[in-house]
Amino acid sequence: MSINGFGHLFRVTTWGESHGPALGCVVDGCPPGVALSEAAIQPWLDARKPGTSRFTTQRREADAVEILSGVFEGRTTGTPISLMIRNTDQRSKDYGDIAEKFRPGHADITYFQKYGIRDYRGGGRSSARETAARVAAGGVARAALAELVPGLRIRGAMVRMGAMAIDPAAWDWEEVGANPFWCPDKGAAADWADYLDQLRKSGNSIGAVVEIRAEGVPPGLGAPVYGKLDTEIAAAMMSINAVKGVEIGAGFASAELTGSENADEIFMGNDGPRYSSNHAGGILGGISTGQEIVARFAVKPTSSILTPRRTITKSGEETEIVTKGRHDPCVGIRAVPVGEAMMACVLLDHLLLHRGQVGDRGGRIA
Amino acid sequence: MSINGFGHLFRVTTWGESHGPALGCVVDGCPPGVALSEAAIQPWLDARKPGTSRFTTQRREADAVEILSGVFEGRTTGTPISLMIRNTDQRSKDYGDIAEKFRPGHADITYFQKYGIRDYRGGGRSSARETAARVAAGGVARAALAELVPGLRIRGAMVRMGAMAIDPAAWDWEEVGANPFWCPDKGAAADWADYLDQLRKSGNSIGAVVEIRAEGVPPGLGAPVYGKLDTEIAAAMMSINAVKGVEIGAGFASAELTGSENADEIFMGNDGPRYSSNHAGGILGGISTGQEIVARFAVKPTSSILTPRRTITKSGEETEIVTKGRHDPCVGIRAVPVGEAMMACVLLDHLLLHRGQVGDRGGRIA
Amino acid sequence: MSINGFGHLFRVTTWGESHGPALGCVVDGCPPGVALSEAAIQPWLDARKPGTSRFTTQRREADAVEILSGVFEGRTTGTPISLMIRNTDQRSKDYGDIAEKFRPGHADITYFQKYGIRDYRGGGRSSARETAARVAAGGVARAALAELVPGLRIRGAMVRMGAMAIDPAAWDWEEVGANPFWCPDKGAAADWADYLDQLRKSGNSIGAVVEIRAEGVPPGLGAPVYGKLDTEIAAAMMSINAVKGVEIGAGFASAELTGSENADEIFMGNDGPRYSSNHAGGILGGISTGQEIVARFAVKPTSSILTPRRTITKSGEETEIVTKGRHDPCVGIRAVPVGEAMMACVLLDHLLLHRGQVGDRGGRIA
Amino acid sequence: MSINGFGHLFRVTTWGESHGPALGCVVDGCPPGVALSEAAIQPWLDARKPGTSRFTTQRREADAVEILSGVFEGRTTGTPISLMIRNTDQRSKDYGDIAEKFRPGHADITYFQKYGIRDYRGGGRSSARETAARVAAGGVARAALAELVPGLRIRGAMVRMGAMAIDPAAWDWEEVGANPFWCPDKGAAADWADYLDQLRKSGNSIGAVVEIRAEGVPPGLGAPVYGKLDTEIAAAMMSINAVKGVEIGAGFASAELTGSENADEIFMGNDGPRYSSNHAGGILGGISTGQEIVARFAVKPTSSILTPRRTITKSGEETEIVTKGRHDPCVGIRAVPVGEAMMACVLLDHLLLHRGQVGDRGGRIA
Repeated sequence: MSINGFGHLFRVTTWGESHGPALGCVVDGCPPGVALSEAAIQPWLDARKPGTSRFTTQRREADAVEILSGVFEGRTTGTPISLMIRNTDQRSKDYGDIAEKFRPGHADITYFQKYGIRDYRGGGRSSARETAARVAAGGVARAALAELVPGLRIRGAMVRMGAMAIDPAAWDWEEVGANPFWCPDKGAAADWADYLDQLRKSGNSIGAVVEIRAEGVPPGLGAPVYGKLDTEIAAAMMSINAVKGVEIGAGFASAELTGSENADEIFMGNDGPRYSSNHAGGILGGISTGQEIVARFAVKPTSSILTPRRTITKSGEETEIVTKGRHDPCVGIRAVPVGEAMMACVLLDHLLLHRGQVGDRGGRIA
Repeated sequence: MSINGFGHLFRVTTWGESHGPALGCVVDGCPPGVALSEAAIQPWLDARKPGTSRFTTQRREADAVEILSGVFEGRTTGTPISLMIRNTDQRSKDYGDIAEKFRPGHADITYFQKYGIRDYRGGGRSSARETAARVAAGGVARAALAELVPGLRIRGAMVRMGAMAIDPAAWDWEEVGANPFWCPDKGAAADWADYLDQLRKSGNSIGAVVEIRAEGVPPGLGAPVYGKLDTEIAAAMMSINAVKGVEIGAGFASAELTGSENADEIFMGNDGPRYSSNHAGGILGGISTGQEIVARFAVKPTSSILTPRRTITKSGEETEIVTKGRHDPCVGIRAVPVGEAMMACVLLDHLLLHRGQVGDRGGRIA
Repeated sequence: MSINGFGHLFRVTTWGESHGPALGCVVDGCPPGVALSEAAIQPWLDARKPGTSRFTTQRREADAVEILSGVFEGRTTGTPISLMIRNTDQRSKDYGDIAEKFRPGHADITYFQKYGIRDYRGGGRSSARETAARVAAGGVARAALAELVPGLRIRGAMVRMGAMAIDPAAWDWEEVGANPFWCPDKGAAADWADYLDQLRKSGNSIGAVVEIRAEGVPPGLGAPVYGKLDTEIAAAMMSINAVKGVEIGAGFASAELTGSENADEIFMGNDGPRYSSNHAGGILGGISTGQEIVARFAVKPTSSILTPRRTITKSGEETEIVTKGRHDPCVGIRAVPVGEAMMACVLLDHLLLHRGQVGDRGGRIA
Repeated sequence: MSINGFGHLFRVTTWGESHGPALGCVVDGCPPGVALSEAAIQPWLDARKPGTSRFTTQRREADAVEILSGVFEGRTTGTPISLMIRNTDQRSKDYGDIAEKFRPGHADITYFQKYGIRDYRGGGRSSARETAARVAAGGVARAALAELVPGLRIRGAMVRMGAMAIDPAAWDWEEVGANPFWCPDKGAAADWADYLDQLRKSGNSIGAVVEIRAEGVPPGLGAPVYGKLDTEIAAAMMSINAVKGVEIGAGFASAELTGSENADEIFMGNDGPRYSSNHAGGILGGISTGQEIVARFAVKPTSSILTPRRTITKSGEETEIVTKGRHDPCVGIRAVPVGEAMMACVLLDHLLLHRGQVGDRGGRIA
């Protein structure tokens, strides 16, 4: 398969370039009868869209989503849902220089090597604009999940910017919506603002770590052994632009633990097992335990920067490049809603898969 | 799909439980005409097999692979290659206790929650024995790669055991085969032996980090945007038992870098682009650059330990568990050949995909 | 997978309903560098579009295709090609009656049974309008095939209308474009016109058989044993609205032949094998022989007719239905360009698959 | 995908050659908790196996199936079920002649053209022996269907041998098991025996038509528009060796009907809709209606015959071939259990898909 789609029963295929007329996706496999409208999807897009603070790219896009199919009288029909978002603020002239030169750290060079041709305007298909389609699909997944698993809640936060990590003890979900960084630690958010102002002025960029959590996920989701829930989450997150690492639960820190430290002890709660801790991040053997799902991913700094860097041209001449145009100084910020959307799609997909393969034959502990 | 397989054009479907009569895989899509025999696959299995040092499980398995189809007169025919490995040293009595109790940190509980039934003997399908099938498939992939991309070389090493990491400056590939840990740092290997002896005697276990590298990968491999090469490597590695995190190139460290630090500058070498550094781990925009591919994954400590832990039974009673039987004190050790095998499968798959979709239309920089 | 797509390396996902704002498809996996424009696709849509003679539905649709992504400066980039066709002549009031009643022989009842909700306007997703998206995708496939396999030619014809079959001896490809039936037999075409005029006036409809041929297909295409070329063609044709049967080469007639009659004898031609006959329809063991591919499919008569028929309502009451609105008296006519398009997509897909899996390792007879 | 598998949620991957050590399949996605044993699968294999009458090949195979994984204490565990059948009566010397020559009408030539190498012994992978694996998988599907859809019944019959068709009015299911042809018409069976005796002695072979029916299929199965139930059945049947045509319900005869004749009128029965007829073959718009599913396929005559035929060698020399060895004079006979097995797999797959995507949101007419 030529792989601009993901998912098994809930399948999303995206299309579109940064500077084309539009971008969008086809969502195939949403259950029928789900209440859905553009108004239900738009808020998620608004959360991701550029230009909402001085800390993201100043490109102005309404990111208004249109539903072109699959919904009738306010409900999904079980047929494909086509979603389209018009591009309205392309400024191709910004990109004249990169038609011939490759930005170091950017997909420019590899798209050329792979395809022999590339739409260089705004990074073409490799642009983070593609993630708008993911967020729209995530909006559909959230609408279905809201009906199928009422208590489920998916939230994300940025937990590190460069050298500055949050204090986990200071985590406050209320704070996440109150600053431009989705930062759950009020003190950290203030420091980040100062740092990023400085960085932005110097024409540089910085990396970040994003954490996505899902509460209320029923136990039993995940398809061992190659569609494990953590495998699918890892793939979903790693497919987001600029992501270089993914971890679940204790993640890389688990490499430093002993077996007796790492294993979450199990007790019996009122409505099922409960655990002394959550090093597992809610997943054991690739299957959800019913605990909170916890995933984190590392986002590298944007490679489109004003600092001059050495590079080559398409014909192999060595030269220097400075990327003007409108770019995110910390692209991790806008990755938060994208990570949430990917989590929503993966969880709905596995809910449907589990319902299909297992139905009501799962085990109950009581 | 019910997902006990992976890959697109080079597709591997595995089957088998720890204590069943056999395990194996069907390899579908290997190019025809590749020289292949059991003797070509066996060495990779020997590298993974248990019981080769005091630091791995003492289960004795020959792990002898049989080719049941797809090879004729020493060459692959393009039809499915069925590989089977007989289990010969099952000791089911070791597992009586875990028929009713769930090991904390283990898939016992989630397999029960998902399926309502589980083969508890040796962990059944969730056992690391499943990885023997992956290593066998990896042997097929290596045989094909050897013919299709002569210079390509895939190697792995363990770079951290618990709190003890190697010194990157001391990296010596020769050393990797000379100690029981696939450790590239002679000094670290000695320390690890001491530490693991101690740990093993105390009935505990420890986590690890494994690094897999691939040299000689041609540029252009990877299928943006949901089959990116890093996405596929992340999924492949995360699907290995006990893995909790995956990173590419600088990985999580890239979150702490600025754009000017992180971007690998590009120069013109004799036979194509060369780079000042490899923070990208050989992949940009999900497509290989031609640099070395570098992936790392974190392996949690085995949850089958002698230290008593609190848990519950299938009927929800709280109790305590001690896991006897034969287990790996550091399962990361045996994950090294598995990670190499997964890398081989992913690279061959994407080589075939690229050849199929793009053929000779890729771009050359010269 | 929720399956509004088909193909492996050349993958088409369609979306849209008869009376929604638009319909379209995403074509994923087209090789890069293929010359493509809306002007290259439009003629194929014009051939399929309704309202071009008195023998098809009088719905007036321009069926103007828009390319929304995947093409840059007149060439495909290897990224997804999004194609959209606006619906412009919906008359939903025509369909008031069928909101509650099910048309006998139509998908009305099964969509309701499956999904519990249906967009009844014009048949919604089950309408033959969906085939416009297939024809657009076929236009992309043809553009790629034109570059990759220069001599390849795909053509279709209607070879039976009701009881009236063509005379194979009278087959004239020139005639196919000269009558409104894609009929290769001039005499038959005249008879069909008379018959269909009569039928149309009586408010009835009639079935048909369509034949699709592909010349210049290289030997070796097809993926045994579940992606055989004939299997894929059968699936592609059977997925077209109203199709009830598919056959390859001698097809059902081969059931009446002996082995000595049926086997096409092989001789040596100037540039490869040649055959005494083509009962195989160009496919042996699921793999193309290099002979002409010949496929036929049966199209049932439209169920939307003016003749009153007994039926039931959504609430289970027995009643009678007469379907007004604008319908095709012989929907087989417009299935000809659709069958051609499906053939083009299947052949390109298998060309890419073969190139990916086998490359240049196929056998040459010389 | 390199496509030796079929199915979505219930996925079957087959492997093996005619004269290799064994053949088999991996069944991935069978629901957990289904009662299953070798004894439950074996009878279906016995029905297909060769050498049971003088009208099939005299190769003697026990076709004894072994379950290697996925079943624990008599029930499926939800993990992959590996099934293996040892080949025990290979006589490779029978095939010396066809190592160099291609049998007209056989896959010999196309396997060589595709792969450049072929296991010529007994046709290798293209042999009808591959269908034993399908029948074994069908046995698993039947076991699951028996629990999930109690009233469902799948049966097949041969309805034509060469020029001799059965009399539909004489259809008697009891008769099917009472003759060596699965013929439901006692009179026809007697005539066929005489005819086939004669044909066999003359070293020739003959084609056939097989009909598969499924009663008790719930309405709502099928995934429009590219996984329609009829599309999937067409693909499943067309993938069987020697099949050249497939039709559903009235099939090709529907091309000769008017809309008023073809549409099955709908009435209200005690427990849902009932129909005046079944031209649709139980499928409308690709979705099951709840009526009996009726599919037919045409099987061409075996190309391995004693009548000398003109052909060429691998090096392109013209020559003559006579195929000795043990072959089926009417391979359609043994296709009956294979067609049933494919139907069982497709129906279970779509039952699981429907349960996954739609759950209990389907529409009820009452």
